[in-house]
Amino acid sequence: MAYVRDAWYVAGWSRDLGPAQPFALSILGDPIVLYRSESGRLVALEDRCVHRLAPLSLGRCEGERLRCMYHGLLFDPDGRVAEIPGQDLVPAQARVRSYPVVDRHDWIWVWMGDVAAADEALIPSAVGLSDPDWILGHGQMDYAAEARLICDNLCDFSHLSFVHANSFGASETWARSRPRVVPLDRGVRFERWIVGEPRMSGRGEGNADVWQWYDFMVPGILLMSSAVYPEGTAAACGMNAPAPDRALTGEGVTFTSQAVTPLTDRTARYFYSWGPRRDQGDAALRDMLMGMADQAFTEDRLMIEAQQRVIDATPNPRIMPTSADKGVTLYNGLVHKLARTPGMAIESAA
Amino acid sequence: MAYVRDAWYVAGWSRDLGPAQPFALSILGDPIVLYRSESGRLVALEDRCVHRLAPLSLGRCEGERLRCMYHGLLFDPDGRVAEIPGQDLVPAQARVRSYPVVDRHDWIWVWMGDVAAADEALIPSAVGLSDPDWILGHGQMDYAAEARLICDNLCDFSHLSFVHANSFGASETWARSRPRVVPLDRGVRFERWIVGEPRMSGRGEGNADVWQWYDFMVPGILLMSSAVYPEGTAAACGMNAPAPDRALTGEGVTFTSQAVTPLTDRTARYFYSWGPRRDQGDAALRDMLMGMADQAFTEDRLMIEAQQRVIDATPNPRIMPTSADKGVTLYNGLVHKLARTPGMAIESAA
Amino acid sequence: MAYVRDAWYVAGWSRDLGPAQPFALSILGDPIVLYRSESGRLVALEDRCVHRLAPLSLGRCEGERLRCMYHGLLFDPDGRVAEIPGQDLVPAQARVRSYPVVDRHDWIWVWMGDVAAADEALIPSAVGLSDPDWILGHGQMDYAAEARLICDNLCDFSHLSFVHANSFGASETWARSRPRVVPLDRGVRFERWIVGEPRMSGRGEGNADVWQWYDFMVPGILLMSSAVYPEGTAAACGMNAPAPDRALTGEGVTFTSQAVTPLTDRTARYFYSWGPRRDQGDAALRDMLMGMADQAFTEDRLMIEAQQRVIDATPNPRIMPTSADKGVTLYNGLVHKLARTPGMAIESAA
Repeated sequence: MAYVRDAWYVAGWSRDLGPAQPFALSILGDPIVLYRSESGRLVALEDRCVHRLAPLSLGRCEGERLRCMYHGLLFDPDGRVAEIPGQDLVPAQARVRSYPVVDRHDWIWVWMGDVAAADEALIPSAVGLSDPDWILGHGQMDYAAEARLICDNLCDFSHLSFVHANSFGASETWARSRPRVVPLDRGVRFERWIVGEPRMSGRGEGNADVWQWYDFMVPGILLMSSAVYPEGTAAACGMNAPAPDRALTGEGVTFTSQAVTPLTDRTARYFYSWGPRRDQGDAALRDMLMGMADQAFTEDRLMIEAQQRVIDATPNPRIMPTSADKGVTLYNGLVHKLARTPGMAIESAA
Repeated sequence: MAYVRDAWYVAGWSRDLGPAQPFALSILGDPIVLYRSESGRLVALEDRCVHRLAPLSLGRCEGERLRCMYHGLLFDPDGRVAEIPGQDLVPAQARVRSYPVVDRHDWIWVWMGDVAAADEALIPSAVGLSDPDWILGHGQMDYAAEARLICDNLCDFSHLSFVHANSFGASETWARSRPRVVPLDRGVRFERWIVGEPRMSGRGEGNADVWQWYDFMVPGILLMSSAVYPEGTAAACGMNAPAPDRALTGEGVTFTSQAVTPLTDRTARYFYSWGPRRDQGDAALRDMLMGMADQAFTEDRLMIEAQQRVIDATPNPRIMPTSADKGVTLYNGLVHKLARTPGMAIESAA
Repeated sequence: MAYVRDAWYVAGWSRDLGPAQPFALSILGDPIVLYRSESGRLVALEDRCVHRLAPLSLGRCEGERLRCMYHGLLFDPDGRVAEIPGQDLVPAQARVRSYPVVDRHDWIWVWMGDVAAADEALIPSAVGLSDPDWILGHGQMDYAAEARLICDNLCDFSHLSFVHANSFGASETWARSRPRVVPLDRGVRFERWIVGEPRMSGRGEGNADVWQWYDFMVPGILLMSSAVYPEGTAAACGMNAPAPDRALTGEGVTFTSQAVTPLTDRTARYFYSWGPRRDQGDAALRDMLMGMADQAFTEDRLMIEAQQRVIDATPNPRIMPTSADKGVTLYNGLVHKLARTPGMAIESAA
């Protein structure tokens, strides 16, 4: 499986990275250390000393720099070795890779591809935790599975009727009807009405129409809004997008930003936030949503990790797509294309 | 190592498989899900959805069928996909493998080979837990070792003198004398007298003669009877089989059925029952026997798992058979032959 | 990486091997069982029965011999099978490898190479725990890392300034100055003065000069003495070796013997003792030193195991030596040479 390298990957929550505290993770199998320098600069370096390959994440921040705490080599934010203790000359080749890194929407984004191509305009427009218009909770979990299996899952919501029958209380309509699927430059858009059904998880009485749209963007960013409307709204709109201000208040419009980051070939980290618009909900609604999300995303994880174990035990595993896979196929085709575009991306070694 | 595919493997105790509760295990590395349908039919399917390879064992029984709980594909007992939610057409190739499966002697038996060759007459005649003539206890344990090492162990009881010196209190006679070994069509028969020795584990006073016979049948089924006789019986019988009704009551005749099932290349499950004839023993004797068995079979497991670790750490491991290995060699030759008979069996991929 | 096979490896503390208690370990990946016979003879055999490869370390000592407790084969101290229960003839090829083994300096040393070349004069002159001139504590720890990474660490004390900044309180002088490095026949000698610095870990007031020398000997034996002298001693000696009797009493001269034993390709065992001369220190000083050592060696282990994980995750890992690596390079060159000398050594399979 190919992954797109010319893309911004979420490395963590901005608030979790304190000053002068090196933090280690892998992205696409690359060992990376993140730190905030004395001046507040955000730095992402290859987490592997040039000397004897000790991890720099066990190192010590000194001003703008990071010192390897094995034999004391000192690294500049651009990856160059600034000092080798007891040695006058520092060889020119003494440097580790430095990754473009940006703090935006309360996430830390790392560019894994060609540095010259690092364009901040390619960062998907997630809603940050500190956005004043929303009341958001957040969470994360690690998967013992390939990131692409999680992306597949997020591009086909027919699983809601089965995986999340208990948590979200999703009806079989999610599996039996199909969303509108629209290709984007670096993603896929999904839109759908769920018409005249009981509200999820008992919020409110009687039936309602639910409008849901989301963009699933390379390299695995989901941006989704759901809104509950009075029954009949879908038909009145001709099954097209409704006006946002007609949503039922008290349940209203919610937004979730999610990110799937491949750590290694067989592990991934999943970040998510969710909550209501500030003018249509409150902290209690947010907490109820997050309780559902934690349960539901654990259901996803158990299913996908089990799927991974079967795949790994199967020689030449092959899938058989269904009509529900339109979005999955579209997204994976896009990944395949972007991963192979010469000068644009590098296929993962895995 | 070859395994025989045209054989019935024990997948579990019949009583442990409740209605509408899918149960997962591997046999010979094949992922299998077992379930009992609404009508009570026993079904064994490949545990791997055709769609995206999720395990069907996380699924839901619906009448006679099993539904994958990832995206809802519904499977008939013969492995065919009966429904894909939201899709009218089901492709003809949409099916998983279905295995012949039989409930007999209180075990569930799965046929791993050519379906056309599945002959229930090949199921070895184990004694079931519910057999009214016997008072049986039962147990099972999982091995981190190849099934064939357990089979080797069960075809050479010279290990009793050493591995089970403490549990069964077996004398060195078990290692220093040899049983009569007789080839069968699908197994090997072992018969022997242990003459004039103290009774095992202090049952009764004074010496006795013990008559023991067992059949070890493909693919790893042991059916064994032991009986304690007054000293001198062996000689009086000319070292041949004694009359069953001369056995000492109170210790009498016991029977054990055992099954070794290869889960994967390096794991196995071991099932066993043991106890006295109803007219010659009681529940207390059964419990004493089972206490010994649990201890002794743990001794076997520790030795065999240690043996496996040595084998795995040895490049080109080679054994040096002894004269005690006659039964082992005979059984493994039979396995080798049955595993390679064209149209009869398929060699394990492992 | 090559390891030297024609060398004595430390297998354990002599006092830890009781009579008639087989003890298992791997050295260079070879499974080995050690035991003391009834007459007190120390024996080292291949830990793998010729019959079915069960580990002899699960066996039973009988006089001078060791019996496999799977099927009862009995082994002589030279590795020959002395008995196969129930079989008259023992084949000539029925034998396991026997290793030269010596009890010296309170360590058990095993020769891993050509038996004809086993020369006890090649055992490095460690100071034993029972040596009356020293008051020694001791310890050991297992590494999830290659032995050679630990040897690299012990041949470059520039790491003291960083890895052990907290435990030994070592100044940056350790990293910024270089020891005198002298090649030996089967090792490398390191000598240095640390001039006019506060005493390590607050022993005593004011500054002092510290003289440190150590030999690092094949296959991974460190023999080191440190002594604290009045400030100015180094200059007065022209930076050469001081007279031992001028050392400050109460801190005085300490000695540490250390051994790195490769268990497998990716695991190692590290043995160490440390303490003052009996006429210059006491048990309290020994205990203080051992407290520091336990903390410091744990710091080493955490760094080196992390380094190993990075190496293992790196395709074609390459190091970039610094001027602090002179001793490392010298020692590894010696290992490389001794490992490849025909008739002298065998390269590790790993």
